[in-house]
Amino acid sequence: MVQLRRQILTYGNFLNQFQLNIKRNSSSLQIKDKKVIQPERSFRYTDLSVRLAGPEQLQPKPDVSDLAFGKYFTDHILKIFYHETLGGWQRPEITPFENLVLHPASKVFHYAIELFEGLKAYRGVDGKIRIFRPELNMERMNSSAMRTGLPVFIGEELIKCLCRLISIDQEWVPHSTASSLYIRPTMIGIDPILGVTSSESALLYVILSPVGSYFKKTKKDIGISLLADPRYTRAWPGGCGNYKVGSNYGPTVYVQKEAIEKGLQQVLWLYGDDNELTEAGTMNVFIFILNDDGEKELITPPLTSGLILPGIIRNSILALSKKWNQFKVSERKICMDEVCQLLSENRLLEIFGSGTACIISPVSYIDFVGQLLYIPTMEHSNPIYKMLLKHLSDIQYGVIQDHPWAIPIE
Amino acid sequence: MVQLRRQILTYGNFLNQFQLNIKRNSSSLQIKDKKVIQPERSFRYTDLSVRLAGPEQLQPKPDVSDLAFGKYFTDHILKIFYHETLGGWQRPEITPFENLVLHPASKVFHYAIELFEGLKAYRGVDGKIRIFRPELNMERMNSSAMRTGLPVFIGEELIKCLCRLISIDQEWVPHSTASSLYIRPTMIGIDPILGVTSSESALLYVILSPVGSYFKKTKKDIGISLLADPRYTRAWPGGCGNYKVGSNYGPTVYVQKEAIEKGLQQVLWLYGDDNELTEAGTMNVFIFILNDDGEKELITPPLTSGLILPGIIRNSILALSKKWNQFKVSERKICMDEVCQLLSENRLLEIFGSGTACIISPVSYIDFVGQLLYIPTMEHSNPIYKMLLKHLSDIQYGVIQDHPWAIPIE
Repeated sequence: MVQLRRQILTYGNFLNQFQLNIKRNSSSLQIKDKKVIQPERSFRYTDLSVRLAGPEQLQPKPDVSDLAFGKYFTDHILKIFYHETLGGWQRPEITPFENLVLHPASKVFHYAIELFEGLKAYRGVDGKIRIFRPELNMERMNSSAMRTGLPVFIGEELIKCLCRLISIDQEWVPHSTASSLYIRPTMIGIDPILGVTSSESALLYVILSPVGSYFKKTKKDIGISLLADPRYTRAWPGGCGNYKVGSNYGPTVYVQKEAIEKGLQQVLWLYGDDNELTEAGTMNVFIFILNDDGEKELITPPLTSGLILPGIIRNSILALSKKWNQFKVSERKICMDEVCQLLSENRLLEIFGSGTACIISPVSYIDFVGQLLYIPTMEHSNPIYKMLLKHLSDIQYGVIQDHPWAIPIE
Repeated sequence: MVQLRRQILTYGNFLNQFQLNIKRNSSSLQIKDKKVIQPERSFRYTDLSVRLAGPEQLQPKPDVSDLAFGKYFTDHILKIFYHETLGGWQRPEITPFENLVLHPASKVFHYAIELFEGLKAYRGVDGKIRIFRPELNMERMNSSAMRTGLPVFIGEELIKCLCRLISIDQEWVPHSTASSLYIRPTMIGIDPILGVTSSESALLYVILSPVGSYFKKTKKDIGISLLADPRYTRAWPGGCGNYKVGSNYGPTVYVQKEAIEKGLQQVLWLYGDDNELTEAGTMNVFIFILNDDGEKELITPPLTSGLILPGIIRNSILALSKKWNQFKVSERKICMDEVCQLLSENRLLEIFGSGTACIISPVSYIDFVGQLLYIPTMEHSNPIYKMLLKHLSDIQYGVIQDHPWAIPIE
């Protein structure tokens, strides 16, 4: 069903990227060995049951031009319950898309016992449907689960289940290389008991949404604009900024609204007294410069701080850039002072964000303590953000054939 | 129905306690004026509809000795929907207790768009049921709503609705001064659209749970034990540690589990390089000492940092202590170094936590970077934690009659 043997090649690199060690004051926290995945405790694809929607339950498919992001959902849902008292994971089931019925005391409603992932299925130029590096999402999902007191599982088994779901709803994968089918695995704590403790009951579910662009279209040649306000912090050492958990998002809504009220689109998250760049909205951030040695250099903040989500597009951009070997590639701290200095010397070439939802988004403006900085990202004739975007897109949509990152669903 | 005129007396003090200003680098953020409550947009008690459970729907009431915390729920639930597209708040409704039915893309499941409150109803020695300073919960709930992009409302209207709910389920208020009925107002974002934005649809609901002690009973003369590990941080400047939102709790579960695995009960949350004490588990923290001037002094960390929840028991302890005028009362920073120093000089008399769930919990042990510190909280013949606990309890259970903090439900 899925060509899983390929993923083994990519595991090692990504594992290095994961910050299961939270570092603060040079001491480190290791996720306990005993918490690693016990194969005999995972759910299995072979136990999957499928109940298809009747013809009267099928929803009309929206027009590709009306897609936006996460507004429409397909006809089926994958659900896997976990109950400690019933031996752990239950059998996976695909059913017609339906609402969740939950006890009002469920931990997810009160204590944000929740995590999610985001990946996409692409309909390639050859008609085949592919998913992009799903094993990395599984790795990260398990890492988030450990951090949230939720149960872990074998990633391959969930990949197989969700490929089956996509296969059932394959007509929902847009026939367009500007669109895709967004896959949202989610896990929530559902114990109906108040009190802040680990979950003994959980629900892992996957829903699918045909999507267009994450950002509303603005003028064609203008990249996104960011609010960089030192009063707000997204993540902190000893917190969970490097996990994909609900808690990292709720507190950002207010700040995001502040940005929109100022006519900006997203927030550039800074950290510390030297205004270190960490993330842009829900994206990782990259900066492309002429460095002190006159070399071109692509820089992104390092994962070692524990403040940054280990993004899969981030990882892929670093891997591609290093392979191309056309410019220097660094993971290091970047501060707003350096951004301003480079701008004043015309050495800042590009800033862009990366993420599964937006892929790569060029940045044109940063509002920083009262100044509106103009970033010339879109002025170059052959910007690297475009080269990267095209290359990733060519892999995802099968223009580059048989790439090990793009796994066909059969 | 509720003696609401009294609450006006207490508002002013508590407003001072709220940190609507998030401070970092001495700049400040003001929650926008336009976001304050517009009376005409709130729901109203007079619109409340009630549908009572049939006799077959009534649950058996558990034995008082089996209560624990948040395990049983009463026969009814209060729900109030908010839909921007339908003009905002809808009519409040009390129905038989039931599960919530929600779209799997609801923001609460993915981005922790959620907040809650906790207060209690007490069956007094005179048989009357009272609630304790509910107007402060409403104030804080609205403050959390503003921070989370959720809608605000008139606190008095929700107090009236929840008193009606308690009145309907009054037989669930335990006949015991060691137990109470815990009231859990919750608000969640329910828009079925992926994408991290403010909520245009929300659900405010209230459930009731008869409760005993928050902590499992240990030996009678031993207070709780805390893990103080500098690697973990609960909240940070520019975050939302001073709001009662789900995001503050999810990331603590892992650390809480770590504490339990070490044989300890809760986490003492530290902040910064000087290991400033912030909170203990889900409680505010107090320390009672002999200060450098030989005076007795009660200290709790200040709210000004934005790291600490403005607790209602915290506020009440400060108010009572100041009124008693028997010892000095301070809101100031306390660091672990000072705790160790005071201990070594036999000047640390008591440490205790405060919160609605636990009321006041004496602390006997702190595990701090490999040392197990013994705190002599329970060794004194007339400890102040006991005096405070008794006084608060006497107010809550009507032993002290007609106290303005205890509002009878008629």
